[in-house]
Amino acid sequence: MTDQQVNRLAAASAALATADAAGQIASLRSDVPSFIVMDVMRAALEAENAGRHIIHMEVGQPGTPAPRVARDVAARALQNDTLGYTMALGNDALRARIARHYADQHGLNVAPERIAVTAGSSAAFVLTFLSLFDAGDTVALPSPGYPCYRHILSALGQRSVLLETGPSNDWMPDPDDVLRAITRDGIKGLLIASPANPTGTMISRERLRALTDVCQQHGVRFISDEIYHGLTYTRPADTALACSDDTIVINSFSKYFSMTGWRIGWMVVPQRLIRAVERLTQNLYISPPSIAQAAALGAFDARVELEANRGVYAANRELLLAELPKAGFTQFAPADGAFYLYCNVGEFLRDTGPQDAAALARTLLDEAGVALTPGNDFDAQRGGQFLRFSYAGTTADMAEAARRLQVWAGDRA
Amino acid sequence: MTDQQVNRLAAASAALATADAAGQIASLRSDVPSFIVMDVMRAALEAENAGRHIIHMEVGQPGTPAPRVARDVAARALQNDTLGYTMALGNDALRARIARHYADQHGLNVAPERIAVTAGSSAAFVLTFLSLFDAGDTVALPSPGYPCYRHILSALGQRSVLLETGPSNDWMPDPDDVLRAITRDGIKGLLIASPANPTGTMISRERLRALTDVCQQHGVRFISDEIYHGLTYTRPADTALACSDDTIVINSFSKYFSMTGWRIGWMVVPQRLIRAVERLTQNLYISPPSIAQAAALGAFDARVELEANRGVYAANRELLLAELPKAGFTQFAPADGAFYLYCNVGEFLRDTGPQDAAALARTLLDEAGVALTPGNDFDAQRGGQFLRFSYAGTTADMAEAARRLQVWAGDRA
Repeated sequence: MTDQQVNRLAAASAALATADAAGQIASLRSDVPSFIVMDVMRAALEAENAGRHIIHMEVGQPGTPAPRVARDVAARALQNDTLGYTMALGNDALRARIARHYADQHGLNVAPERIAVTAGSSAAFVLTFLSLFDAGDTVALPSPGYPCYRHILSALGQRSVLLETGPSNDWMPDPDDVLRAITRDGIKGLLIASPANPTGTMISRERLRALTDVCQQHGVRFISDEIYHGLTYTRPADTALACSDDTIVINSFSKYFSMTGWRIGWMVVPQRLIRAVERLTQNLYISPPSIAQAAALGAFDARVELEANRGVYAANRELLLAELPKAGFTQFAPADGAFYLYCNVGEFLRDTGPQDAAALARTLLDEAGVALTPGNDFDAQRGGQFLRFSYAGTTADMAEAARRLQVWAGDRA
Repeated sequence: MTDQQVNRLAAASAALATADAAGQIASLRSDVPSFIVMDVMRAALEAENAGRHIIHMEVGQPGTPAPRVARDVAARALQNDTLGYTMALGNDALRARIARHYADQHGLNVAPERIAVTAGSSAAFVLTFLSLFDAGDTVALPSPGYPCYRHILSALGQRSVLLETGPSNDWMPDPDDVLRAITRDGIKGLLIASPANPTGTMISRERLRALTDVCQQHGVRFISDEIYHGLTYTRPADTALACSDDTIVINSFSKYFSMTGWRIGWMVVPQRLIRAVERLTQNLYISPPSIAQAAALGAFDARVELEANRGVYAANRELLLAELPKAGFTQFAPADGAFYLYCNVGEFLRDTGPQDAAALARTLLDEAGVALTPGNDFDAQRGGQFLRFSYAGTTADMAEAARRLQVWAGDRA
């Protein structure tokens, strides 16, 4: 999103708030929250409009475009193809290439027929929840976690229960958490993201297997959000497909492949679910964007460029893990992957004065010129004690952000 | 969709039918029908694989790509833009240009803030139904009509009632039909498409105003599917916005603008609903495809090319309306727009032998080499007596199709 766009967003949102107050005609189910990160972006923009220089660590998307080879393939498709509808589940060449990705990366044999190409992981979540669960069914989600999971479930008339994670369970639900949710809430599904947003934490292979086993034993559907796979810094991420073919895996070209705005992702589903997914996607989406499918196929040949992007994130991560503690930010969730650091700022708040993470984020924006996201989007209970740092920007910006935060903390001390 | 793609679709569907039989894990709500037109496409492909020449009149999409200027804009965006997420409701420049379209085409002043750019009209339907209606609410739909309306409603836990149309009500629901549905079914919404699929018929301005008035008086939400606007041959189509600002208008770049596979469309919503739509689209879609938004903005400058496309459809329509009666196809719904003829083949069936329209379509494919869609997709009750002819192909193909049908009918006589 460009600054100009964010600027207009701010104006539009103000107008809309007024409109909301004027009268309510919307359905009850449409009453889902918007993102707090949008408020941060708006405040950052206002600061920039006032002439200040802001470093953006609030946004969860790469600053890089789609890789060169993907854009070249898209340019050729523009010239040579009609780019009409494709099959609802996506082009076969892309489905086959995605299937091969599991052989290359994980040594797994996945039939191309089990791949559904989707309009981003967003469509994959809608299709997963609609194809697996009926209205009123309950799905367990980790907290903190990506807020859209529960908002989509809510809009579709489904329920969610939150499984609290933190240092005591290595920031991932454990089998006991899941068993309790089965007994207490009668959950029909469990969704795990690894690496996770906002923590960047990865699940261990043993825990992943234990969770898929518990789910299989109790007839609970296991959904694995693997959108940050490829962006790992300590060890490769494990796919849930290595534990069980009876899981739904969701992935995307947005993060590792740097193609957020193209709206292209995929799911891997059990063979006997693919027909339900196909019928739903025919009716709700018709087919994924054609030019994005072409570009995505090309993106698999961009390993060198994509690994260079990852190298920047790795350098950013090292730099911040070394420098942020000098500013007083010390309690991070294990930063295994994605491009996020999730920091408990409880002590920091006591030392420096702001009331909660939202106030701290506002203060750091105003006084240090660094835009960060408070944890409230991800965890309504405890998020007020946490900040998320996104390190998807340049290494120079990360160094300058660390320097500014150190100066700010030094002035407060 | 290319022949190769359809070929693979056939193989995949066969595999899936087997998988379906093997076990059912899908939700009840995912049990929506797929398209019968897919069966026709598969049969047409099998005929082509057997070496026969088939003329395709079954598919509802232009054979042309996006207009040249749209593709040029997309090519420049590939070079110069990051193509990350945009605002959830779309880029402001595109929203403003769409708003201006209503001034240019209809002399209406529509605020850009009321435009939501969507991932095709498919997303617009999902967002409309979710933002307006709760689970269990009932929406009235014309029959025959686009089958996805009722399948989406059903997947979202909402109900539909069908308002039968035909020669007696000019193929459009009249106010009495709607009043009965209000009394009998307690409908919360009414959806009208004009020009309609499969009939191509347009609603009169007086009827449109009468329907919006009835809806307004009874608190029923009026949804106007205007996806075939621009593709008209007798008079311009009226937008529901000319009758009331309190309607939801859905449109798309797929048909007139010839951009099906780009997955880009829009809605115009009342000011006080836009915030609900924005929240839902943030969570369910994040934002519409960025490159498609760029191309769509360009497409507004392609009037000459797009009017040339329409000229081909107009010529096809004239040709078929003159030639098809010579083959015995005489009872068409008023062919005002879109690129469809919807023909009552009841008498034709009695004269020629096949049991119903599906059998007739199969026979015409086998014996005349012309692929047509039986009405069953659009009207479960009466569709067995109707065929839909799509004339989105070339004029040469349409002439050859008419010739083949005349020869076939002559042989039967």
